[in-house]
Amino acid sequence: MPGNTFGKVFKVTTWGESHGKAIGAIVDGCIPGISLCEEDIQTELDLRKPNNSNFGTSRQEDDVVEILSGVFDGKTTGTPISMLVWNQDAKSEDYSKIKDIFRPGHADFTYETKYGIRDYRGGGRSSGRETIGRVMAGAIAKKILKEYKIKIIGHTLQIGPYKATTFCSKQIMKNDIRCADKNIAPQMIEYIEKIRKDGDSVGGIIEIIVKNMICGLGEPVFDKLSANLAKALMSIGSVKGFEIGLGFNSAEMLGSENNDEFYIDKNKNIGTKTNNSGGILGGISNGENLVLKIAVKPTATINKTQKTVNKNKSEKEINVIGRHDACIVPRLIPVAESMVAITLMDHLLMQKTIA
Amino acid sequence: MPGNTFGKVFKVTTWGESHGKAIGAIVDGCIPGISLCEEDIQTELDLRKPNNSNFGTSRQEDDVVEILSGVFDGKTTGTPISMLVWNQDAKSEDYSKIKDIFRPGHADFTYETKYGIRDYRGGGRSSGRETIGRVMAGAIAKKILKEYKIKIIGHTLQIGPYKATTFCSKQIMKNDIRCADKNIAPQMIEYIEKIRKDGDSVGGIIEIIVKNMICGLGEPVFDKLSANLAKALMSIGSVKGFEIGLGFNSAEMLGSENNDEFYIDKNKNIGTKTNNSGGILGGISNGENLVLKIAVKPTATINKTQKTVNKNKSEKEINVIGRHDACIVPRLIPVAESMVAITLMDHLLMQKTIA
Amino acid sequence: MPGNTFGKVFKVTTWGESHGKAIGAIVDGCIPGISLCEEDIQTELDLRKPNNSNFGTSRQEDDVVEILSGVFDGKTTGTPISMLVWNQDAKSEDYSKIKDIFRPGHADFTYETKYGIRDYRGGGRSSGRETIGRVMAGAIAKKILKEYKIKIIGHTLQIGPYKATTFCSKQIMKNDIRCADKNIAPQMIEYIEKIRKDGDSVGGIIEIIVKNMICGLGEPVFDKLSANLAKALMSIGSVKGFEIGLGFNSAEMLGSENNDEFYIDKNKNIGTKTNNSGGILGGISNGENLVLKIAVKPTATINKTQKTVNKNKSEKEINVIGRHDACIVPRLIPVAESMVAITLMDHLLMQKTIA
Amino acid sequence: MPGNTFGKVFKVTTWGESHGKAIGAIVDGCIPGISLCEEDIQTELDLRKPNNSNFGTSRQEDDVVEILSGVFDGKTTGTPISMLVWNQDAKSEDYSKIKDIFRPGHADFTYETKYGIRDYRGGGRSSGRETIGRVMAGAIAKKILKEYKIKIIGHTLQIGPYKATTFCSKQIMKNDIRCADKNIAPQMIEYIEKIRKDGDSVGGIIEIIVKNMICGLGEPVFDKLSANLAKALMSIGSVKGFEIGLGFNSAEMLGSENNDEFYIDKNKNIGTKTNNSGGILGGISNGENLVLKIAVKPTATINKTQKTVNKNKSEKEINVIGRHDACIVPRLIPVAESMVAITLMDHLLMQKTIA
Repeated sequence: MPGNTFGKVFKVTTWGESHGKAIGAIVDGCIPGISLCEEDIQTELDLRKPNNSNFGTSRQEDDVVEILSGVFDGKTTGTPISMLVWNQDAKSEDYSKIKDIFRPGHADFTYETKYGIRDYRGGGRSSGRETIGRVMAGAIAKKILKEYKIKIIGHTLQIGPYKATTFCSKQIMKNDIRCADKNIAPQMIEYIEKIRKDGDSVGGIIEIIVKNMICGLGEPVFDKLSANLAKALMSIGSVKGFEIGLGFNSAEMLGSENNDEFYIDKNKNIGTKTNNSGGILGGISNGENLVLKIAVKPTATINKTQKTVNKNKSEKEINVIGRHDACIVPRLIPVAESMVAITLMDHLLMQKTIA
Repeated sequence: MPGNTFGKVFKVTTWGESHGKAIGAIVDGCIPGISLCEEDIQTELDLRKPNNSNFGTSRQEDDVVEILSGVFDGKTTGTPISMLVWNQDAKSEDYSKIKDIFRPGHADFTYETKYGIRDYRGGGRSSGRETIGRVMAGAIAKKILKEYKIKIIGHTLQIGPYKATTFCSKQIMKNDIRCADKNIAPQMIEYIEKIRKDGDSVGGIIEIIVKNMICGLGEPVFDKLSANLAKALMSIGSVKGFEIGLGFNSAEMLGSENNDEFYIDKNKNIGTKTNNSGGILGGISNGENLVLKIAVKPTATINKTQKTVNKNKSEKEINVIGRHDACIVPRLIPVAESMVAITLMDHLLMQKTIA
Repeated sequence: MPGNTFGKVFKVTTWGESHGKAIGAIVDGCIPGISLCEEDIQTELDLRKPNNSNFGTSRQEDDVVEILSGVFDGKTTGTPISMLVWNQDAKSEDYSKIKDIFRPGHADFTYETKYGIRDYRGGGRSSGRETIGRVMAGAIAKKILKEYKIKIIGHTLQIGPYKATTFCSKQIMKNDIRCADKNIAPQMIEYIEKIRKDGDSVGGIIEIIVKNMICGLGEPVFDKLSANLAKALMSIGSVKGFEIGLGFNSAEMLGSENNDEFYIDKNKNIGTKTNNSGGILGGISNGENLVLKIAVKPTATINKTQKTVNKNKSEKEINVIGRHDACIVPRLIPVAESMVAITLMDHLLMQKTIA
Repeated sequence: MPGNTFGKVFKVTTWGESHGKAIGAIVDGCIPGISLCEEDIQTELDLRKPNNSNFGTSRQEDDVVEILSGVFDGKTTGTPISMLVWNQDAKSEDYSKIKDIFRPGHADFTYETKYGIRDYRGGGRSSGRETIGRVMAGAIAKKILKEYKIKIIGHTLQIGPYKATTFCSKQIMKNDIRCADKNIAPQMIEYIEKIRKDGDSVGGIIEIIVKNMICGLGEPVFDKLSANLAKALMSIGSVKGFEIGLGFNSAEMLGSENNDEFYIDKNKNIGTKTNNSGGILGGISNGENLVLKIAVKPTATINKTQKTVNKNKSEKEINVIGRHDACIVPRLIPVAESMVAITLMDHLLMQKTIA
């Protein structure tokens, strides 16, 4: 059953394997007449590239976007926008020795069981490179949302035991870990470096804040904005949890504490004094900031010997020494932002059918 | 934009308002030839009824299901199954005084802004009664899943500060709070009773465990089983967080701790020694138990004076004295189980297109 | 696989069997704030009722619509509109003798083969009564389209060998066959009467004209307006052909004859001098009248002995003496108009996501 | 609103403009484990190429397919199959003079009105080159259907006034017009040649026969096989009519003539003696041959002066002297076959969710 399309109106389809010829995305349903060039997309794509920091993977590809359709004279035409990135650095020989073995924490076993066949080179479709398609499509969504003044800010809230306690948005791009707390950022980085040297990996928590939200987005009862954001973010590899507003903390709240009281602000608009709901009431945006959190598991690839099994149901040991990310969190931020942007764009266009 | 349908193959559409004539659901895509009668559905429906405990709402309706189509001679025919429950206890006059005012924590404001009109009686479509449709459809899914030996167990993990620390599935139906820890259950109930008397409400956490899972369910990259489960559960009113496996705790794990090592079990099947992933690898079920958690916010309706605003943008005070649930958690369990059942049923049928 | 939903934005789901409890429809995605009452729908429903003419079926039910949700204080609220008609006249005993036999021209054999089970009473889901759901949903679409001045006119173009040669829209409702040619209408009626007495049935051709069309509806390349209209109309039982504009006659045209030249009309609008295209260019409406034709096969039920087979693969003879329509054409007109209205409504809302 | 995807399970998305960089298609939902190589697709693609006959366009591109994903070690993996053809022969300068003018019979005016912008080079997305995507996807569908023994045969039934009266499938590939009647084929070709010299164009009728059909395909009530085939074929540019079985001729039939009587054949299977229905009962395939016809209008591009208007609402004359097809019919046959193959493949997989 096809599962590679997201959205109903701003419809994104992605394709491509880690070591195939290319990775691509189609956006069908994009508004016509929007200025769009490859640079708009390249900027976002560069943010998910392994950087020069110590905790990134050493695979160094130039992921260069190419727009193949849907744009004419620098503007979108309303027809499908096809984009791709060629895979440059694909060495298939690296992976032949793991073709029959199931790496713990990876999708090798489930793909093999589901499909009866799998492209074992670099994880195939389950590779992190799949997110290139999401970022390309997300770049278009972000560009349009900017015209609505909607701003999506992702940042690292936690790495292992290190938690940010202050938030200064200007700090985010100033450190490799994309943390808004300048005091904790160096400790996070140092911690990852230690983990990396040890051949291990570590997880974290990303927070995404959406500012200048439009009120009224979300389609009850199943396509609630919160439900589709949860799906969007949980569809990213390695994401294991999702929260909106107080999330799991709301379990310990009383109704009288948790309810956000309405008031009339200076501009005579209706707002809420607190934002425990994270910007959602009844599955519909209420105009306050969206506040989302996602939990990221530690990267499955580690440089340590692990017990596992192979296709022939023999128990084996595996130690895949090679390039890997000790911490995927900062590279997931543009991906998470992209999925939020795509979801918001989709809901924004859905709402046009009503208003 | 229509948002009242869930699923692609086992497709559930629900309709109905709290104080309209009826609440209903259509299941289109159900397998033909399945034995089905109204009692199968009534049993599940009774579980979401306000019970006689102190913390339930005092609204006492007999929610009696009626099957209108899709079943012939006691068997499903493959045509759409239409079911409804008539609303008996709808007193519209109760609600006229709140027709212009936006209750904090409720969807009044967002529905009004989104649609420009709303059925203010009892929350209309955003009422908890909407979940009747989900439970009716879920009952059918559960019945079919039972033939595959798949078992869905929901239970209360936490109410306010009280957390279950042991799990005995036989305890769940023995207490009103549906807690699997017989020691903490009375404290949870006592706590809710206290909150109720105080006119307040409280939230909690529900865990859902799925046993005897089939391997291979989930459609990467966007319709991952975990992503669709997140959407399914986050689409339930009051749910603010979702976790699978270790969830947010995985942020503090090392890869070497978090990866579930494969082994060959006694029956020569491939399994994992631990289940940190919660039964999902690469978005596809791996045959281990699914382990999901959802956070439930405290019920928005409380018997306390709250500040708010009305349609004319005047600040007001509101105190809706009336029936309400001090804690919705136990009544949400059958709803959450239903959404899990519908999602699994849908994915199970999707997988048939491959294998 | 579910197949009982039509449309993407104005989404119609129908359910119900000929001899089940009821027949129903849900419209999800209807614009909020539209005035709507049961009479709006009843009026359309009455047009598909067997009338008092000689060629109608003698089954005389009062198909009374009941709206169960989605309308509050006489207005649509944007939530799903659930409607149903109770089946009054269902006598199951009439059908027991045909439960194992496959009637020629009917769906008995294919339903049995497809689903392994079928509701044999009156054709079950494949009965003409299924169209009640379409007409109920279509009535809502028509009401909204009227606000856009869009007018849908269906009429009988041909019955057996009798073809209308003139068109006067005022004539359509003046005769039982709904023919716009007052001279041929009596001959059509007389012919059907003769056929009916003979226990036989006859087909015909319906033309549907849509006036005051909006330019720009249709979503290339697969959801062209013409493609979706074809699907909508071909999904009606007994319809075997579809044409737009010159249809099959365009095969004999030269390009120089067939191309509709553009000109500037009195109101300074762009129009075409001829309308060979039937109002569609590149799958998108061009503002000219839509002109569609559908071919209706003779009703499968006849009072004549026919050869056939039963479930046990024995050859049998069958002669179902009972009520039947000698000619279904006039009763299909409101159904066809409804499907056109639903399709246009859907495309009109789709276009809102662009403009 | 996105309209560039066809199908629910075997899901085809196409993209690309006539003079953009490339034309492509994605197939998501293809069965894993199928042998597939570029040559399988190239063979089909070559059939829609302008051939060396006198009536083809003089644009001579090598449309060479490239598979970019979804195939590993010569087999499909169940992940999306991305394919493209680079546009070689795109000379944008040819089209600058028509950028403000609306060609009669073309989609220039409707695209401009719908989207407010259009890629005027060679018709952009509305060009016949768009069908490359359909043929690439259709080639995969055909390959799989072949394993089910299902065979799709398209042929030219009529060109202008010349109608085939005999059918010999071996003749089809022996003449440029792909006619199964060897006597009429030369007359058709001669006629087109005459039309071409005159700068004009002509239409025709294509018949498609599907042999060795599986019984039980089609999803009532809206996704009937006949309805989706109608949509599939009517979505091809230039197609103005669709018939199944007797089509419009059934209007003149009596029920007693039209009903196909069932019988038990030599192999103890249930069949029908006649096939007036064209292989469909109640929207579901009955195992007999599918028999479909489509009407193709004369190509809109002609070498004659025509009256029209421009964007500024001035009346103009236009005479686009250039390459064009005097008759598109033979080149549409592989496209029509592809759309039938895609639709059948989709329904075949849908049926797997039931049986």
